[in-house]
Amino acid sequence: MKVADLHYRTIWPDARCKFVEVIDQTKLPFAFEIVRVQSSEQMAHAISTMQVRGAPLIGVAAAYGMALAMLEDESDDYLAQAAELLIASRPTAVNLAWAVGRMVTALQATPHTRRNFTAWRLAANIAEEDIAQNQAIGQYGLELIKNAYQNQLIRNKPFNILTHCNAGWLATVDFGTALSPIYAAHDAGLNVHVWVGETRPRNQGAFLTAWELAQHGVPHTVITDNAGGHLMQQGLVDMVIVGADRVTANGDVCNKIGTYLKALAAFDSNIPFYAAVPTPTIDWALISGEHIEIEERHAGEVGHIQGWAQNMGTDGKLQTVRVMPLESSAANPAFDVTPARLVTGIITEKGVFAPQNLHECK
Amino acid sequence: MKVADLHYRTIWPDARCKFVEVIDQTKLPFAFEIVRVQSSEQMAHAISTMQVRGAPLIGVAAAYGMALAMLEDESDDYLAQAAELLIASRPTAVNLAWAVGRMVTALQATPHTRRNFTAWRLAANIAEEDIAQNQAIGQYGLELIKNAYQNQLIRNKPFNILTHCNAGWLATVDFGTALSPIYAAHDAGLNVHVWVGETRPRNQGAFLTAWELAQHGVPHTVITDNAGGHLMQQGLVDMVIVGADRVTANGDVCNKIGTYLKALAAFDSNIPFYAAVPTPTIDWALISGEHIEIEERHAGEVGHIQGWAQNMGTDGKLQTVRVMPLESSAANPAFDVTPARLVTGIITEKGVFAPQNLHECK
Repeated sequence: MKVADLHYRTIWPDARCKFVEVIDQTKLPFAFEIVRVQSSEQMAHAISTMQVRGAPLIGVAAAYGMALAMLEDESDDYLAQAAELLIASRPTAVNLAWAVGRMVTALQATPHTRRNFTAWRLAANIAEEDIAQNQAIGQYGLELIKNAYQNQLIRNKPFNILTHCNAGWLATVDFGTALSPIYAAHDAGLNVHVWVGETRPRNQGAFLTAWELAQHGVPHTVITDNAGGHLMQQGLVDMVIVGADRVTANGDVCNKIGTYLKALAAFDSNIPFYAAVPTPTIDWALISGEHIEIEERHAGEVGHIQGWAQNMGTDGKLQTVRVMPLESSAANPAFDVTPARLVTGIITEKGVFAPQNLHECK
Repeated sequence: MKVADLHYRTIWPDARCKFVEVIDQTKLPFAFEIVRVQSSEQMAHAISTMQVRGAPLIGVAAAYGMALAMLEDESDDYLAQAAELLIASRPTAVNLAWAVGRMVTALQATPHTRRNFTAWRLAANIAEEDIAQNQAIGQYGLELIKNAYQNQLIRNKPFNILTHCNAGWLATVDFGTALSPIYAAHDAGLNVHVWVGETRPRNQGAFLTAWELAQHGVPHTVITDNAGGHLMQQGLVDMVIVGADRVTANGDVCNKIGTYLKALAAFDSNIPFYAAVPTPTIDWALISGEHIEIEERHAGEVGHIQGWAQNMGTDGKLQTVRVMPLESSAANPAFDVTPARLVTGIITEKGVFAPQNLHECK
């Protein structure tokens, strides 16, 4: 998608397949910086420090990490060692293990001297597949929006979509999952407006989603996570679209903490609630969301916020502030599970499925 | 309640009735500062800038604002002018108009030369009534907690109460509304633990509720506003108690933005949800919450956060940071309405009432 009128992906290989470049997402929206990743070890570091983040993107990043490894050493030993290193960089991420596993299987079946060439080609394929899946999600989502948009045309009002966290192009190679239908609708000339929940504690909504929508020129308004329910009660939300870290076989949606509250509010106001995910995000091995272990992240994420300094002669510089008393402690569950009964549909690259029909896309 | 072992109220008159002093709540928890309010205009400013905030407290503050007005000029014209100024300082809370109306009625019936004396006496009475009401709310709420606490004793676990925003002693003259039962339970030796939602955008939970619970020694944990629903799904919340800015005749609860989302989650997990309010917070003139004007506050409250600086050689100093891109705008509705169907009961100084029986406390 566009950054200051130039087209970017979140990750791309050097033309001669000697290194990889990525957008450093720890710097956004404070600075737009490209990082050159020159070794498999550097790629593992980029993943673990969240310079690249988002389930689909870290899968692709790990695939390129394997390609960098084959540049270093095409031996069986090194192949196994690099795979282990990359999988360990975010051990809970399913897409990571999936992408590395796919690379290992293909490379083991390839003569040593051809492994470097094969690895770069396969990593590029995985990246292209991600883009194609996200574009297909965008088109299926666009149909949903178009159908609902008719009412708004009559009322001469924008079509308001609420999203949570960041499931945009920054979380993928390009286009995004939850934001892909929104970009498609905007580009098709529909009058869409996005309510962006800031998504405490890490503010991926206010930091990443707002930034990428602004860069692409999509009208949007940042709100606190508290405000979504009220806007729905007031008739100011026409559809909710979120991404997901994992969807279970019954259609339960595990996503960023706070998603469940928005789903409850959408249900209460009879507003359609969709999760947009490529099918590799569906975990067919899990019958329901109760079985998902919820990651408890560091309490410091709740107690501290990073932003642009606004006073004290440090204007515009990056500054971390503590936002609770030293005497108090904090808890920080990172995800929650939205029960399938609150989910209108799952938007995938194979179509839109009600939770009870999700098996049809298996 | 106590601040570093000294007893404080949030507001008190000078012994010679020449000015009023208040705790400046915009400085908490970063600094504990007392502000001297010397005119009705200064009191309107203290209310609109939220140096004093919380429905019960701004009622009392406005009453003292009328007393300050009578110190300035005891005429009918000035009485009407001061009343108008004070009522306009915050639109949503009913207590403000109630307290000012009560002052105006009494003062209109008082000879001009006695108005100053009468005004200070009546404002003091309103403050004492607030304290007595909050203590009674604490006792009625304590009974609810004691009854439910039996289950926790058997399970040998703390009794977990979730609250939102600040309805503690800082929101009143003393004791608080939602926190009054919690202080009563803690002081009675019950093992209570409080989940404190940070309450973006102004963080009154993380700033004020956490601060006052810490000062009083009540065990508590700060969470993002996103986390409450997940904790309820996990069985980690036994009761929700919030305050309210206004309760309508049918039991709809208008409170800080985000309250509605917690009520939905409590209902979904079959957890009792109470609003604790003195009866002056009940607006008998309004049949339901749809008719309440919701205050839209400045977008800068969403886009900026204040905290203690943590780096750049400015450690511990107060610093404001911007937390969204300059290119994005924000919306900031300050309150929402929780429908009576989600409310288990209203805890008042006259007892606990199910919404459908609320008229019994009229």
